[in-house]
Amino acid sequence: MVKVGIVGGTGYTGVELLRLLAAHPQAELRAITSRADAGMPVSQMFPSLRGRVDLAFSHPDEARLDQCDVVFFATPNGIAMQQVRALLDAGVKVIDLAADFRIKDVAEWEKWYGMSHACPDLVEEAVYGLPEVNREQIKNARLVANPGCYPTAVQLGFIPLLEAGVVETSSLIADSKSGVSGAGRKAEVHALFSEASDNFKAYGVAGHRHLPEIRQGLANVTGTPVGLTFVPHLTPLIRGIHATLYARLTKDVDLQALFEQRYAGEAFVDVLPAGGMPETRSVRGSNICRIAVHRPQGCDTVVVLSVIDNLVKGAAGQAVQNMNIMFGLPEKTGIDLVPLLP
Amino acid sequence: MVKVGIVGGTGYTGVELLRLLAAHPQAELRAITSRADAGMPVSQMFPSLRGRVDLAFSHPDEARLDQCDVVFFATPNGIAMQQVRALLDAGVKVIDLAADFRIKDVAEWEKWYGMSHACPDLVEEAVYGLPEVNREQIKNARLVANPGCYPTAVQLGFIPLLEAGVVETSSLIADSKSGVSGAGRKAEVHALFSEASDNFKAYGVAGHRHLPEIRQGLANVTGTPVGLTFVPHLTPLIRGIHATLYARLTKDVDLQALFEQRYAGEAFVDVLPAGGMPETRSVRGSNICRIAVHRPQGCDTVVVLSVIDNLVKGAAGQAVQNMNIMFGLPEKTGIDLVPLLP
Amino acid sequence: MVKVGIVGGTGYTGVELLRLLAAHPQAELRAITSRADAGMPVSQMFPSLRGRVDLAFSHPDEARLDQCDVVFFATPNGIAMQQVRALLDAGVKVIDLAADFRIKDVAEWEKWYGMSHACPDLVEEAVYGLPEVNREQIKNARLVANPGCYPTAVQLGFIPLLEAGVVETSSLIADSKSGVSGAGRKAEVHALFSEASDNFKAYGVAGHRHLPEIRQGLANVTGTPVGLTFVPHLTPLIRGIHATLYARLTKDVDLQALFEQRYAGEAFVDVLPAGGMPETRSVRGSNICRIAVHRPQGCDTVVVLSVIDNLVKGAAGQAVQNMNIMFGLPEKTGIDLVPLLP
Amino acid sequence: MVKVGIVGGTGYTGVELLRLLAAHPQAELRAITSRADAGMPVSQMFPSLRGRVDLAFSHPDEARLDQCDVVFFATPNGIAMQQVRALLDAGVKVIDLAADFRIKDVAEWEKWYGMSHACPDLVEEAVYGLPEVNREQIKNARLVANPGCYPTAVQLGFIPLLEAGVVETSSLIADSKSGVSGAGRKAEVHALFSEASDNFKAYGVAGHRHLPEIRQGLANVTGTPVGLTFVPHLTPLIRGIHATLYARLTKDVDLQALFEQRYAGEAFVDVLPAGGMPETRSVRGSNICRIAVHRPQGCDTVVVLSVIDNLVKGAAGQAVQNMNIMFGLPEKTGIDLVPLLP
Repeated sequence: MVKVGIVGGTGYTGVELLRLLAAHPQAELRAITSRADAGMPVSQMFPSLRGRVDLAFSHPDEARLDQCDVVFFATPNGIAMQQVRALLDAGVKVIDLAADFRIKDVAEWEKWYGMSHACPDLVEEAVYGLPEVNREQIKNARLVANPGCYPTAVQLGFIPLLEAGVVETSSLIADSKSGVSGAGRKAEVHALFSEASDNFKAYGVAGHRHLPEIRQGLANVTGTPVGLTFVPHLTPLIRGIHATLYARLTKDVDLQALFEQRYAGEAFVDVLPAGGMPETRSVRGSNICRIAVHRPQGCDTVVVLSVIDNLVKGAAGQAVQNMNIMFGLPEKTGIDLVPLLP
Repeated sequence: MVKVGIVGGTGYTGVELLRLLAAHPQAELRAITSRADAGMPVSQMFPSLRGRVDLAFSHPDEARLDQCDVVFFATPNGIAMQQVRALLDAGVKVIDLAADFRIKDVAEWEKWYGMSHACPDLVEEAVYGLPEVNREQIKNARLVANPGCYPTAVQLGFIPLLEAGVVETSSLIADSKSGVSGAGRKAEVHALFSEASDNFKAYGVAGHRHLPEIRQGLANVTGTPVGLTFVPHLTPLIRGIHATLYARLTKDVDLQALFEQRYAGEAFVDVLPAGGMPETRSVRGSNICRIAVHRPQGCDTVVVLSVIDNLVKGAAGQAVQNMNIMFGLPEKTGIDLVPLLP
Repeated sequence: MVKVGIVGGTGYTGVELLRLLAAHPQAELRAITSRADAGMPVSQMFPSLRGRVDLAFSHPDEARLDQCDVVFFATPNGIAMQQVRALLDAGVKVIDLAADFRIKDVAEWEKWYGMSHACPDLVEEAVYGLPEVNREQIKNARLVANPGCYPTAVQLGFIPLLEAGVVETSSLIADSKSGVSGAGRKAEVHALFSEASDNFKAYGVAGHRHLPEIRQGLANVTGTPVGLTFVPHLTPLIRGIHATLYARLTKDVDLQALFEQRYAGEAFVDVLPAGGMPETRSVRGSNICRIAVHRPQGCDTVVVLSVIDNLVKGAAGQAVQNMNIMFGLPEKTGIDLVPLLP
Repeated sequence: MVKVGIVGGTGYTGVELLRLLAAHPQAELRAITSRADAGMPVSQMFPSLRGRVDLAFSHPDEARLDQCDVVFFATPNGIAMQQVRALLDAGVKVIDLAADFRIKDVAEWEKWYGMSHACPDLVEEAVYGLPEVNREQIKNARLVANPGCYPTAVQLGFIPLLEAGVVETSSLIADSKSGVSGAGRKAEVHALFSEASDNFKAYGVAGHRHLPEIRQGLANVTGTPVGLTFVPHLTPLIRGIHATLYARLTKDVDLQALFEQRYAGEAFVDVLPAGGMPETRSVRGSNICRIAVHRPQGCDTVVVLSVIDNLVKGAAGQAVQNMNIMFGLPEKTGIDLVPLLP
């Protein structure tokens, strides 16, 4: 059994980690911390976990996280980087669901996140936890930077095209739509039901923090910088990301075969048959990314449709997938859930 | 392994049965029939099941249901009663998710359902599949009438009061609210997104088919007829029933203890602590009924709040629970799912 | 032209007042105050008002409200009572959309609202602004207490029964459901999209502030205290209240005629034909209350269904209706809007 | 008063025409036809119109549409073309909200709509009713082809760029999202609440009927064919279209000024200040198109955000705007509604 701790479990990625770990046959939940709610039973805050999680939130100072095998950080940005070194020194592996270790260029990270980084050396060590790209490195990682939700959906959609070198890389477009849980469980007016329901809007057009993360991931594939226009939108779903990706083809290629071959061995990437159009609900509650590739009217613009559940493959599910890889467990352990439809 | 067949698997109770059975460690899905869609892979209609259900819909005449151990009917009312006898004669157990065998008074059934019953003798034999009431009879049943969604939520909420004899039984009120999936996967204008979204309404106030089913169940508890006003409402949820029950107390009693004791041994009924108010999302995707009991302002009106997922505890989940009981499996097998929240 | 001021215009009742007054042919909007957002153009906060409202929010100290003919308070409870006397002394009429002047029993008010009342004498003077009951008093009122949303829907539904003396008044039940905008435009976790969407729950079962307001209104009709169980629920609508009312009949009476006659002359109460079941969307954006009365199965429980838009007839629309009455304008002026369906 | 008839008033564009015309001070509604529902009062089907529309649906053969001044067709494609000639011959003006007269290339129309055109000569005569482009021709038109919803949002967004000649026209991208009411009031499974709620998907990627309409409109501006990738998506709104448009800049230009100048005199196009991001709810129920233009990170990809209410500016509202122009009424008459927010 893997002994697990969670730091900051009162947000949506936290409760999703709990949902998954509560049913994970090889994980033993040891501690979950919350400074503000220390002492409150987890199931009081999240009644969906009554009878499944018996822990109470504990104060960070008393949680004995150093006795865990792995600690997940489901905290706001800037928290994990304060605490990771001590845990690593104690032999604990760390998976950070926030952004602290995602961007290798520390100056770039500091610009987008508006703070100084506490441990640039650990940024260098950290492995970017996208298993479909970095599985081998994840196996031996002490510190995994779990990818963002948009970056997961967008990178998995673009990668086959970039690896094959069949599109212009200077003018990629990622028109992305997210459910509202992506904004977290913070009390903010814009995320109120009466604001976000029956409404659709773009946001962050001038620049969103996931842009440098995606650019880095794509540039790692191509070996050169890419030009990317990334427009995120808020759509009235609880869960779900739908990325609609556009690129200009430079070569004639069997796109369907390209995608099927790239993801042939991947348990959590499902390439739909030609002509398919994935729905976000077809992955609701599951760790699956479903992808379809189109070439409308036979023109030279390729369109890729990529959907994930932002809280699962876009956060907690991918984090557990990384944990499974890091601890030598079968990759699907505990996250082989059937999507909830309808 | 229990060999399972499903008749009529293209509706919401059908796909929910598939979701549950696909992950059930002791069930082997042998056949799923659909006259209209014979030949179509199940996963084409329900992409959420890609990689989980490899069957195609088969024509009823070719499905060899007689070789199954159990057959679920997820059909419109009036279908199962045509086919059950042959299956029973072949030694197959049957669980009917429709209403054909729920009402013992056949004349009453014929009045509410507007058709003649094909096999009144089997109505008599059928066991009403509410495990919290009829667990022992279910164990040995050949034919189980799976309860309706509203009846499950309402009966579980009223039963402790009626068994204890602490309320007037002549003027019970069940103000019930259902998500739209309760209307099924039929193309009907009133269930369109643009009709049912951002809208709330009562329906069937003059008389709903679940009324006689609930009255029968409650009368079985009290031993005498009960007076019940049942007002169903449609609310913009996909899944979920919330029953708000009102009764007039005739005795002073510790209501909280009454409910906790009644359901102490039940895996799928969760009595909330005093003062609790269950949310439908706290049971989303799970087989749990959560119940709270209140006595506002200390007056003599008791208020019970009861929530279920109408497709799980209100349909497919309860059906699998019944299957588990009928085949001697641990009752939670395959349906011990953590609710999906948010 | 009636010169109008609004205090506290950044919430949902505030923006709804603006929507109505912007198109009101006899109202001239002079000032709208917000301490926190003074200086910001109204249309920056509410882009729906671009080109319709040219004002900026002004600081309360600089708004010159004393030069208005009428001031609406769309503030949290406890604000209006601090400021009303000065306005009345300056000859300004006041309509308070909060609860400060609704409850005649000041001690009761102080118990439910948890503060001392600043001006009990003005409570006595204030007229409860339910035009269908108090139209004559409203005409000459200096200070109108605009009813709460639940109280409007519930009282309009019960009044015909109570006036006619045909039901038991000791055991009334009001099972009420509200859209989320009723919770206001405050940043609170429970009102987030990801919490309130696809979810249904009761709240305030032990006691809700609208309970004493409704009891007072009903007791005014009957002349004696009434017994009322009031259970509010949150349903995933932006706008809308649906009250399902239950009472025990003590006399045989033509219920349909009773309701039609009671509201025959009312522009904003629409009694549906027998058998009707009003939908919240049928009043969306309008000042109408639609009501239907039922006697299911001919039993002695009468069921009344009453729907309003909580922000219009339940708040801003009724406030403008009161303004029209107070200033001798035709009652429908500026609020004769066709509901938005779908 | 303009005497108005409506053919096919039982869909969403029909009820929206009724909502607008019921409050239009210069329109007199004479007849509304429905073959299937002849005899039924309009307000029985649409209770939101109780007290506002007293007509019953009439049979097409008995509606005396030839005595109207103008007839709106709110019918499925292929109906108007059968009936328009007789009306025009009788001196009646016609506004077709369907697609029969939108595409000038009849062969192209027949390919996309799968039927033979009944009156190609009238296609030639028909004026495409986008007032911001064709106002002068509309004034004298007998027959107006009211634009589609997507084409309205997309064309208004691209036109300033194309008129100014500042973008590549061979690789335009229109990533468009629509609320579900765009699918009409037809009983179809994919538009059920339980299918379309909490779900996001692309559709019609291989080719959507609005593609040739948009291409025609844009080519009319540039004078040469344009290359356009058009990907429509379904999003869980009742009303609203959000078009996110991408083009590659070929010249440096003050984009904000370009858009503001183009639409300076337009009552129903609102260009947001620089940096703005329009929300669909900011135009809910109104005839307004709100547009913002961005140049993210200063790169050469321009992003235009364009929102409309698909039933108003995308259908019935624009149709009434056209009627106003055709009959010499002030263009805003009857459609100067404040959006409903929240």
